[in-house]
Amino acid sequence: MENEMMTVQLEEMEQLFASILMKNGVSEKEAEETAQVFTCNATDGVLSHSVMRFPRLIRQIQLGIVKSGVLPVCISSRMAVQRSDAGFGLGTTSARLSMERACSLAKEYGIGLVALKNANHWMRGGYYGWQAAQQQMIGICWTNTMPNMPPWGALESTIGNNPCVIAIPRKNGKHVVLDSAMSQFSYGKLEETRLKGQQLPVVGGYDKEGFLTTDPQSIEETGRVVPAGFWKGSALSLVLDMAAALLADGNCTCEIPKDTIRESGLSQMFIAINPEFLGEEHSERIANKVIDSIHASKSIKKGGVVRYPGERVIQDRENARLHGVSLSSRAWQAIKDLA
Amino acid sequence: MENEMMTVQLEEMEQLFASILMKNGVSEKEAEETAQVFTCNATDGVLSHSVMRFPRLIRQIQLGIVKSGVLPVCISSRMAVQRSDAGFGLGTTSARLSMERACSLAKEYGIGLVALKNANHWMRGGYYGWQAAQQQMIGICWTNTMPNMPPWGALESTIGNNPCVIAIPRKNGKHVVLDSAMSQFSYGKLEETRLKGQQLPVVGGYDKEGFLTTDPQSIEETGRVVPAGFWKGSALSLVLDMAAALLADGNCTCEIPKDTIRESGLSQMFIAINPEFLGEEHSERIANKVIDSIHASKSIKKGGVVRYPGERVIQDRENARLHGVSLSSRAWQAIKDLA
Repeated sequence: MENEMMTVQLEEMEQLFASILMKNGVSEKEAEETAQVFTCNATDGVLSHSVMRFPRLIRQIQLGIVKSGVLPVCISSRMAVQRSDAGFGLGTTSARLSMERACSLAKEYGIGLVALKNANHWMRGGYYGWQAAQQQMIGICWTNTMPNMPPWGALESTIGNNPCVIAIPRKNGKHVVLDSAMSQFSYGKLEETRLKGQQLPVVGGYDKEGFLTTDPQSIEETGRVVPAGFWKGSALSLVLDMAAALLADGNCTCEIPKDTIRESGLSQMFIAINPEFLGEEHSERIANKVIDSIHASKSIKKGGVVRYPGERVIQDRENARLHGVSLSSRAWQAIKDLA
Repeated sequence: MENEMMTVQLEEMEQLFASILMKNGVSEKEAEETAQVFTCNATDGVLSHSVMRFPRLIRQIQLGIVKSGVLPVCISSRMAVQRSDAGFGLGTTSARLSMERACSLAKEYGIGLVALKNANHWMRGGYYGWQAAQQQMIGICWTNTMPNMPPWGALESTIGNNPCVIAIPRKNGKHVVLDSAMSQFSYGKLEETRLKGQQLPVVGGYDKEGFLTTDPQSIEETGRVVPAGFWKGSALSLVLDMAAALLADGNCTCEIPKDTIRESGLSQMFIAINPEFLGEEHSERIANKVIDSIHASKSIKKGGVVRYPGERVIQDRENARLHGVSLSSRAWQAIKDLA
């Protein structure tokens, strides 16, 4: 089968996602909301957590691992903090509603926290950071995952790569959004680099002999990816897991099924901070100052530009709105096959 | 001058710190409190932010960069969030009081936040994490610093290594405390490794030719340390800086004097979360489960043990309480010379 690059318009993508979801028993409302999140992630250039993940989601719905129509339920709440149970509903639905609730709490208390248990994969964490920033909130959220990374110094994967998001709002809508897993590279990135016949830019894991390597295939064979910052990302992954599981009274990483299809029952944390409560008259000054200092940095590469987190997303988004999303025909066919 | 290892008892250390501070115009109360923080940091095995930093603090007090007797003042507060001005007081004093205030807010609202501007160096961030955990709070705090690290892809240092702390309380007092700067190695670690004639365990920065290297001296010569996780630590450093400066209405990294003595006017963030508000009946189960899974991990090294963040601190602390703090005679003489 040919695998050329092609372009899909946003409306077409969103409608196809929604119709496939409805065909699989998702209500019209939730199907449209879910399709909107998946399309937004593609628009923002994160195909790995959009088109590439959509078939797996459908499989999980068919198997009953992901239960559409189930909304998160508050099981404990007091003042600015809340614990909710996602009930194994759609991960994008429960994450979106939890960040929405954290923002509501922040509007009332200046800061709000929702700890969520029994959640499913939220796809791209950055979505919920943007969601908070659109309300001019600082958004912080993270999730645990199944065990997919060895802690530093260990042979086997017993910790998760636990993606973490920090979003800083700007008045002009060009928010600064960090969206980072605790592994140096995702498994998707390893695969992509291998298929291109390339090496990783820095070491990404261990080979069979136990040496750190930049060769993606060697790392895929051992499954031993390195945490970002080695012992640092390992430690950060662990405390994020503990904090989310403890506050949500949910599963920690070692309790989550180690299987990409059965991975479910995650613990997640959503924090929103409302800068308006402290007076935000100078917030633009600070955002601009930091961004200007980054842009003024002399690049290692001649003619290169140093960018801030989320900057590429803004460019990809504008591009996709004008021209549609560019993706491989094989990836798009895999979606069409579900219709 | 000989530089052998020696042992100093905790009482002797604390009394000497306090007397030197008082000799430099610090009130008895603040001198004792400050001496307690410095001694605790030494007890916990973090000499780099205790004995090794104490002479610099005294110099900063003498130069008027650090103003003793100045307490942080609340300049804006509403519900669970507060903005304070440290007024260039002692960094350990303003950080300690700010975390204390965040914990008070968390006792009232479930979560509390204090953003602090015009702060001085807080020495070891982990101290304030332990402080929150001692009250059975999840403590999260970070500080910006002077520019001391190039953003990923850039030649010059325009971002800070912005240490970040996340503390998870345990009922048995053996809290899990992550205390991590955003650089892969501190400058102190580079120096220590060079003096031992060793190489770093992983790449820590660039040499003169622009290649990543494990040689500490080459990195010291260029001053180009790498962020932990390369682009990941770089991005995290940037959003931590923005969040702290924005909420504190304080300086961002690029506004802070790039000089180890004149580094002052930092922005810091203190967040406390009160698990009790959500019901913490199972919190021990989760902490134990995560820690057990780490301890059960098979080590890369034969007979090695995989540890969790803060575990070494507990061992060092018990050891120091029994036997005193082990340090070089030269480092201790530098303190005695100030008396």
